[in-house]
Amino acid sequence: MNKTILERAERVTRETIAPRASQYDVAGANPIESWRALWREGLLAGTVPTAHGGLGLDMPTYIAVIRAVARGCANTGMTLHMHSTVMRFIDALGTAAQKRRYFDEVVRHGKLFGSWGSEPAVSLSRTLLMETAIRRDATGYVIDGVKHFCTMALGAAHYMIWCALEGGTDMAKSLQLALVPAETPGIATDGKWDTLGMRATFSPSVTFTGVRVPDDGMLGDPGRRAPRRRHRELRARVRGDLHRHRRVGAGLRDGLRQEARRADRRTSPSRMDPTVQRHIGELAAHLEAAGLVLDDSAARWDAADPAELGPLANRAKYLATEVGLQVTSKVIQVVGGRGSYKDFPAERAFRDLRTCTLMPPTVDRMLEAIGKNALGLDAAMFNVSGTPPRADRA
Amino acid sequence: MNKTILERAERVTRETIAPRASQYDVAGANPIESWRALWREGLLAGTVPTAHGGLGLDMPTYIAVIRAVARGCANTGMTLHMHSTVMRFIDALGTAAQKRRYFDEVVRHGKLFGSWGSEPAVSLSRTLLMETAIRRDATGYVIDGVKHFCTMALGAAHYMIWCALEGGTDMAKSLQLALVPAETPGIATDGKWDTLGMRATFSPSVTFTGVRVPDDGMLGDPGRRAPRRRHRELRARVRGDLHRHRRVGAGLRDGLRQEARRADRRTSPSRMDPTVQRHIGELAAHLEAAGLVLDDSAARWDAADPAELGPLANRAKYLATEVGLQVTSKVIQVVGGRGSYKDFPAERAFRDLRTCTLMPPTVDRMLEAIGKNALGLDAAMFNVSGTPPRADRA
Amino acid sequence: MNKTILERAERVTRETIAPRASQYDVAGANPIESWRALWREGLLAGTVPTAHGGLGLDMPTYIAVIRAVARGCANTGMTLHMHSTVMRFIDALGTAAQKRRYFDEVVRHGKLFGSWGSEPAVSLSRTLLMETAIRRDATGYVIDGVKHFCTMALGAAHYMIWCALEGGTDMAKSLQLALVPAETPGIATDGKWDTLGMRATFSPSVTFTGVRVPDDGMLGDPGRRAPRRRHRELRARVRGDLHRHRRVGAGLRDGLRQEARRADRRTSPSRMDPTVQRHIGELAAHLEAAGLVLDDSAARWDAADPAELGPLANRAKYLATEVGLQVTSKVIQVVGGRGSYKDFPAERAFRDLRTCTLMPPTVDRMLEAIGKNALGLDAAMFNVSGTPPRADRA
Amino acid sequence: MNKTILERAERVTRETIAPRASQYDVAGANPIESWRALWREGLLAGTVPTAHGGLGLDMPTYIAVIRAVARGCANTGMTLHMHSTVMRFIDALGTAAQKRRYFDEVVRHGKLFGSWGSEPAVSLSRTLLMETAIRRDATGYVIDGVKHFCTMALGAAHYMIWCALEGGTDMAKSLQLALVPAETPGIATDGKWDTLGMRATFSPSVTFTGVRVPDDGMLGDPGRRAPRRRHRELRARVRGDLHRHRRVGAGLRDGLRQEARRADRRTSPSRMDPTVQRHIGELAAHLEAAGLVLDDSAARWDAADPAELGPLANRAKYLATEVGLQVTSKVIQVVGGRGSYKDFPAERAFRDLRTCTLMPPTVDRMLEAIGKNALGLDAAMFNVSGTPPRADRA
Repeated sequence: MNKTILERAERVTRETIAPRASQYDVAGANPIESWRALWREGLLAGTVPTAHGGLGLDMPTYIAVIRAVARGCANTGMTLHMHSTVMRFIDALGTAAQKRRYFDEVVRHGKLFGSWGSEPAVSLSRTLLMETAIRRDATGYVIDGVKHFCTMALGAAHYMIWCALEGGTDMAKSLQLALVPAETPGIATDGKWDTLGMRATFSPSVTFTGVRVPDDGMLGDPGRRAPRRRHRELRARVRGDLHRHRRVGAGLRDGLRQEARRADRRTSPSRMDPTVQRHIGELAAHLEAAGLVLDDSAARWDAADPAELGPLANRAKYLATEVGLQVTSKVIQVVGGRGSYKDFPAERAFRDLRTCTLMPPTVDRMLEAIGKNALGLDAAMFNVSGTPPRADRA
Repeated sequence: MNKTILERAERVTRETIAPRASQYDVAGANPIESWRALWREGLLAGTVPTAHGGLGLDMPTYIAVIRAVARGCANTGMTLHMHSTVMRFIDALGTAAQKRRYFDEVVRHGKLFGSWGSEPAVSLSRTLLMETAIRRDATGYVIDGVKHFCTMALGAAHYMIWCALEGGTDMAKSLQLALVPAETPGIATDGKWDTLGMRATFSPSVTFTGVRVPDDGMLGDPGRRAPRRRHRELRARVRGDLHRHRRVGAGLRDGLRQEARRADRRTSPSRMDPTVQRHIGELAAHLEAAGLVLDDSAARWDAADPAELGPLANRAKYLATEVGLQVTSKVIQVVGGRGSYKDFPAERAFRDLRTCTLMPPTVDRMLEAIGKNALGLDAAMFNVSGTPPRADRA
Repeated sequence: MNKTILERAERVTRETIAPRASQYDVAGANPIESWRALWREGLLAGTVPTAHGGLGLDMPTYIAVIRAVARGCANTGMTLHMHSTVMRFIDALGTAAQKRRYFDEVVRHGKLFGSWGSEPAVSLSRTLLMETAIRRDATGYVIDGVKHFCTMALGAAHYMIWCALEGGTDMAKSLQLALVPAETPGIATDGKWDTLGMRATFSPSVTFTGVRVPDDGMLGDPGRRAPRRRHRELRARVRGDLHRHRRVGAGLRDGLRQEARRADRRTSPSRMDPTVQRHIGELAAHLEAAGLVLDDSAARWDAADPAELGPLANRAKYLATEVGLQVTSKVIQVVGGRGSYKDFPAERAFRDLRTCTLMPPTVDRMLEAIGKNALGLDAAMFNVSGTPPRADRA
Repeated sequence: MNKTILERAERVTRETIAPRASQYDVAGANPIESWRALWREGLLAGTVPTAHGGLGLDMPTYIAVIRAVARGCANTGMTLHMHSTVMRFIDALGTAAQKRRYFDEVVRHGKLFGSWGSEPAVSLSRTLLMETAIRRDATGYVIDGVKHFCTMALGAAHYMIWCALEGGTDMAKSLQLALVPAETPGIATDGKWDTLGMRATFSPSVTFTGVRVPDDGMLGDPGRRAPRRRHRELRARVRGDLHRHRRVGAGLRDGLRQEARRADRRTSPSRMDPTVQRHIGELAAHLEAAGLVLDDSAARWDAADPAELGPLANRAKYLATEVGLQVTSKVIQVVGGRGSYKDFPAERAFRDLRTCTLMPPTVDRMLEAIGKNALGLDAAMFNVSGTPPRADRA
């Protein structure tokens, strides 16, 4: 755990990010000033390797940073995490030239990277079937399709698009990540984003019509069949990062809940009521448990076998989701009428929680995966190979 | 059950009230057009006796009307209920002249009446100690104090203020209801109302500084000691109406939940998933149970012994509260990301539910009262007599 | 509601059945004396038509009787219900001669009838595939197979066996009910029954080896294809009775819970503690809700459309199951250490509840069925037609 | 963590203790053979300092040992823990001569020590007022009173009795622990112990009539006022050990749950059903969380400030209690009818869990204490000073 970095994150959150959270929430707009503040502190490059000028954070420090930021503004925390995940993908799959180019944009110019994967068939089903297609023509690769919940649209400089290679039948081979600059012709957003919470993670739907991927935008080797070993590695990493994504979502929620709890302690007029103490006690015990599970998952992450990453991530996210919803709702109840005022911190936390816990994998998918793992079944959540896992075929 | 009246309420809700619900929610403003529509249908006078030109609805019909309205707009339903409760108080406590005058304002002119009782010490404690005082001077009665959550401020024509007669020590005698016109000098609202939900029940804090009650504004006989029998009756009615208030709150929530459920049925892409079916089944069973409890309480209300009113109301409101929160939150979860969109009906229902379940009595107070009743203890929730009930002294 | 009959059931329970409940529980033996007492009061013939000397009870009275008996001894209530359900099947499917013969055994001789359907593949799956086969040979019908949880084995005079006609492929046609006398050669029980609760519903596994069905033991027309209309009717009744079975199970539990609650009221040393009041209030509210749902299902039963029977039964049983488990567990908790003593009534109720809620349909199957119904899908729980319902194929 | 010791505990549990668990449960008798096996392995002296021939286990190893034993037999685990706690008291409060004498009985002769504190007023109230009195007469100290739930009565060689010095008004000074040999005249047990679970922790009520404490039986210095520092230390240790007691109770439950879970994995016929996977996933996540909290509390225990011990213990026990009840009940549900068979391990675990979670402090007291701590209030659970804590007076 790098304490210096963590304290830097806590300071910039306290001084710059938290005070702006409410206005971005009201506006439903990208938290641009907060991103800039993160860049100034080097935190946009938290997952960029040190060799490329980044911080190269270990997982426990990274989680702690996300939690610290999310404590002040869940939206900034969530977008920082999405961006940081793209950095990991570039590091895992990119060429030396790609790393030089894209990391430089982050480190020197403070650019943000979005990651867009959501499609209706993906979010709620038990498979990972992409309908957004990427095909090769005479001059390069072209994307057509529609993505939903495109976080950081109109805010990030680059979007990493999850596509399927046209004509492929095996998603393990067809899955292709492509980086395109935000200003590429053919990218059209519907601009609609008016939600209950997580309002500053501006996430409209986006249509891709003949969107050309630049020469250095393809991550990995779409053109030829990768050697078997390399392929396995890629898949493990992809899956690992997917899980990583989820787990850090947990960090987010955890931060929000701590905020809610502090708020309650300050304002509750009924601290001496045993019934109120009982409510707070119940919430506190479950909060601590969820926090310990998250810490334990973070501590074990970097050394974990790829097969363990799913269970480690799922249990952390599931508990954070459940506890987060329970805590923010109950805190409002304990505080009473004032608890629903917009200037009371639990109000925003409650909306953000109910919204961000909708991000895939859903509660049901996580629980099924944890259950499969406990029952000794293959716990793969996403069916990268294109065929339904055994349990679903039964 | 008067089916004609109910169908009228359903029609005006569908045609006029529901379509305006979203805009009032966004604006956080009194639903003035919706009130007007209710007036045109005679529904502002639902609890005004027929002898005075009202509908004189029995309790089951009244509850059904509130549910129908709340199904389209919880805020209109809630304010209609508050107003209707004031009508009951005037009918129970008013002189013939007062009834003529005030009922006429409703029946012929469509005026609204607010009822303001909330004070911090009342909402969260186990007692009913009013700090807003009313005193007599040479020319009449004068009110000083502060009230919170003053629903329909700047929208109603009259406000019914819950006060304590200055110098009184026994709340059973000191409790005084006073009707004051909205434009009376000395009434100042802070205008602050920006909340999670129930946003169109505009409810700022209001300060009373030397507010003069008009000659015909005092309900009941403050000047002299009422005969014992009369007093018991008054207290029973007051308590009954308090409970009635709560119970109808349940109607509100029930309506919201039905809306949420219909919404889910329409939009869910995963109806064939057994896990989704299981969630919906769980919600549906609890919804039906809560609805049956509400119906049963309404059916038994008019003939019930005053001592039964509390338990009848509490169980209905408690179940509606718990089920309502669970249903709206889970519906959003089942629907997934789209569930948090502002144009999805569950989003508003979820906010409204989390907010309106904060209205007193709180969940904890209701459960304690139900428990006392089940244990054969005195279940009075409000300590009208000014001394703590036995259980609290122990 | 026939009050005279109900009071008779309450009296015999209080005087004869309840005092023996503990000894049958300890012994894990059929409650023979309690059955005899029910017979003396005519209650073994509660569902036998009056034309045949029975009581011909309407559903609300029948449910009330089962609840009354179960309040004193859950095991006697459960077996009375199983037996009464067989009476309904004989009434629905039997010939005039069969009715005369079998009803006479009950009315005049106090005989009991068991109903054995459980097979592993049935209890936990979503289908109704019987592996116990019935085939015709030169001299009549013969049964081979194994049944589990054969309640009233060695206690009833006749067993109604659920079989599949050998060679059939459509369960809607193959399902066959056969009545065999207990002493028929080829019926062998393993005698094993040592369980957590419901110990006096002695229910070992039973093997059938070439068991000959007597000439008047076949219910319905196995030999030829029934006319379409008649078939639909039969299926509806069969399904109705299946559901009826479940629903009355609810009656059982409800009785147990009332016992538990009374017990608590008597013995709790902490009635004045608000936390205890809160627990009791929560339990009481949910108990009343479950009771109202059961009453409502019973009141609507006799006039209900066959398609409604499933939802009416499921919601009643589901709520009784959930509330019953919660209530008995919490009552023990509230009472403290003494609550786990065998001479405290909640101890037996707790064990009986956790056991009897395991009877099919399980909680998951009920919730899925309620959910399908709420979502407008075909809610048939059992796949009588032999093919998986659509939702499972998806 | 001493792995050798832990493996030894696992082996003796597997080979000797677990196979006998069922017979002791059926008989409701002290697990004498299991205690003897623990002695042979040195484990009866786990908390005896090495200087006195014991193992002097650190807290993480000690907790792991208790969990291992409880996994095979909850009753043996619970009694081992109670006995080990008495060893800690002797170590904290005893003179050199007392340590020599009593530790020797354990190390060389395998004697057990019970600890009896339960009195009705203590178990369910928020105070620690002992009614069992100890007084001095001409020849020494004499005890009169009644204790409930006297675990290991007729099995242990010595009983540590929690008494109040006669005439004292300040429980912080009056609380006195006295060791009396089991065969001392005046100790009479009612012999009644027939419970739902934890049946082999034979715990009848015991009456003390003029029971003489031997000269070396008084722990601490009853005769004169202890120096202030020494007193604080004593109280801290006493409280610490109280909490320790609770927390290790958690170890017990955790073991039981792991057993239940393994059982499920083996026998469930429905591993491929997503609904079953979801149930197991939910239980597994909460089990892991509760386990991590217990581990964290154990790891922090030895170095913790006395004020932290309460929160560390309470959160561990509360989560183990809640999760344990949920897991054993749901495992039986998932397995179905077979789950209630006495030869299925979850059946006994379920009864043991519902019983041992009744041991003080109760769930409500633990939650209130956790809540007070989270709210920054004094979290002392027991009112050692004899006056009600502030929150209760309010």
